[in-house]
Amino acid sequence: MIKEMDRSPIGVFDSGLGGLTVVRELKKLLPCEDIVYFGDTGRVPYGTRSRDTILRYAQQDMRFLLSKNVKMIIAACGTVSSILGDGVDVSVPFTGVVKPAAAAAVKATKNGKIGITGTQATISSKSYVKEIGALAPDAQLFEKACSLFVPVVENGFVGIDDPLPEIVVRRYLEPMMENGIDTLILGCTHFPILAPIISKVLGESVTLIDAGAETARYAASLLGENDMLCKDGKSGKYSYYVSDRTDDFSVVAGTFLGEDISGSVDRVDIHSL
Amino acid sequence: MIKEMDRSPIGVFDSGLGGLTVVRELKKLLPCEDIVYFGDTGRVPYGTRSRDTILRYAQQDMRFLLSKNVKMIIAACGTVSSILGDGVDVSVPFTGVVKPAAAAAVKATKNGKIGITGTQATISSKSYVKEIGALAPDAQLFEKACSLFVPVVENGFVGIDDPLPEIVVRRYLEPMMENGIDTLILGCTHFPILAPIISKVLGESVTLIDAGAETARYAASLLGENDMLCKDGKSGKYSYYVSDRTDDFSVVAGTFLGEDISGSVDRVDIHSL
Repeated sequence: MIKEMDRSPIGVFDSGLGGLTVVRELKKLLPCEDIVYFGDTGRVPYGTRSRDTILRYAQQDMRFLLSKNVKMIIAACGTVSSILGDGVDVSVPFTGVVKPAAAAAVKATKNGKIGITGTQATISSKSYVKEIGALAPDAQLFEKACSLFVPVVENGFVGIDDPLPEIVVRRYLEPMMENGIDTLILGCTHFPILAPIISKVLGESVTLIDAGAETARYAASLLGENDMLCKDGKSGKYSYYVSDRTDDFSVVAGTFLGEDISGSVDRVDIHSL
Repeated sequence: MIKEMDRSPIGVFDSGLGGLTVVRELKKLLPCEDIVYFGDTGRVPYGTRSRDTILRYAQQDMRFLLSKNVKMIIAACGTVSSILGDGVDVSVPFTGVVKPAAAAAVKATKNGKIGITGTQATISSKSYVKEIGALAPDAQLFEKACSLFVPVVENGFVGIDDPLPEIVVRRYLEPMMENGIDTLILGCTHFPILAPIISKVLGESVTLIDAGAETARYAASLLGENDMLCKDGKSGKYSYYVSDRTDDFSVVAGTFLGEDISGSVDRVDIHSL
């Protein structure tokens, strides 16, 4: 027997479109699941804002997803995950990206030296430090807020041979090379787009942890453990919502998702929720 | 006799803190005037958003300033000025930055080749092209949306010898050098902070037009012509409001205003206006 709830969609949200990297992973792992995505493109970015403002915005975003009858909520945003923490009071299972990424980093490191990147709000929150500290108290952690990574990605400066993103990556990450890290958490769902350039700068010996991809895997196992996966064998349906839509929307969305979704996107007045 | 309205403040607003460059000029030109500033730091930047969203946000910003009984409104933001145009329906005199900057550029150019920079929304709006076209139909115009300038400035990468802002400036402006411009409009109130680097890249022979500074001069003459200047000889009072306040607020505000205002800033819930 298929429970009605199993056919409900998975809800995914982000400050903007970076969270589509999580959707991309979810589609690979769970091709039968329906997904509802919300990107708060009318108020992106969150990572430079205050804790109070990020909390208020995230609560509105989750109210929207709940109105779509989701069976699970994924905060596919390093900033929101860091500010919300575990204390999220919603009626469905919830995960952010911090816990899965921290667990993956602890598993990956050999020398116990882990670098942590994220937005200013993520780094200030100490979310990854707390999570890793609980799992591996002896790990040595090196943090860096990489505030220009999001605009560099959103403006499409992501070519492996382009000196512009490389100088930006070097500016933030060169000190970590000197610290001898062997593992680096990409703690914001925009950052995986820069992974090839980061690897070029840090060298192939540093393992990059994609917080979004780890979260997709974690969410899949959580749904499995709770017997909440859809089992009717039909292909999943995808609904995308944003709070603003610009002329270059399809280009930016395509960067993150690897396909054009511009025809299947609706606009939401998030301020009123 | 001093009319009561003369003592009312001048209202200035921007998507964030870039508009403080206009306040800095106003304070020099009109030291007796009171000023109320609003920066929508909870929703900055505007320049990457859609026309509808920018209009909605700007209307809320102006409602807030009118609630402070201002005698004039200055949209100290290239993006808002470009989207609003001249058709602003408010009960007090209004100016954006486009008209004053366009007039100054037409006056400054000798070879008739003018470069125009701004955010994506500003360039897409063609606001400067229309304004200059009306004043100097034969001018040759070269436009470039410089989307990374705002985050580069807000992250404090503004050192004259820093290769990071220089590579960003070169990326956007090198094509203009080939076009032979002799005048460049800095069409966003964040951009004057990069003026020394822009001059280094383009050469001293290119005249930079600071849209914010031109607007402050225009606003001063408009108030004078309409006999609305304060004449009681007292020093002006300054009130600053923002929709979000972050840990690094005073650093960023100081970059634009040249003084620390962190003690005299209040927070506004702009969404409810």
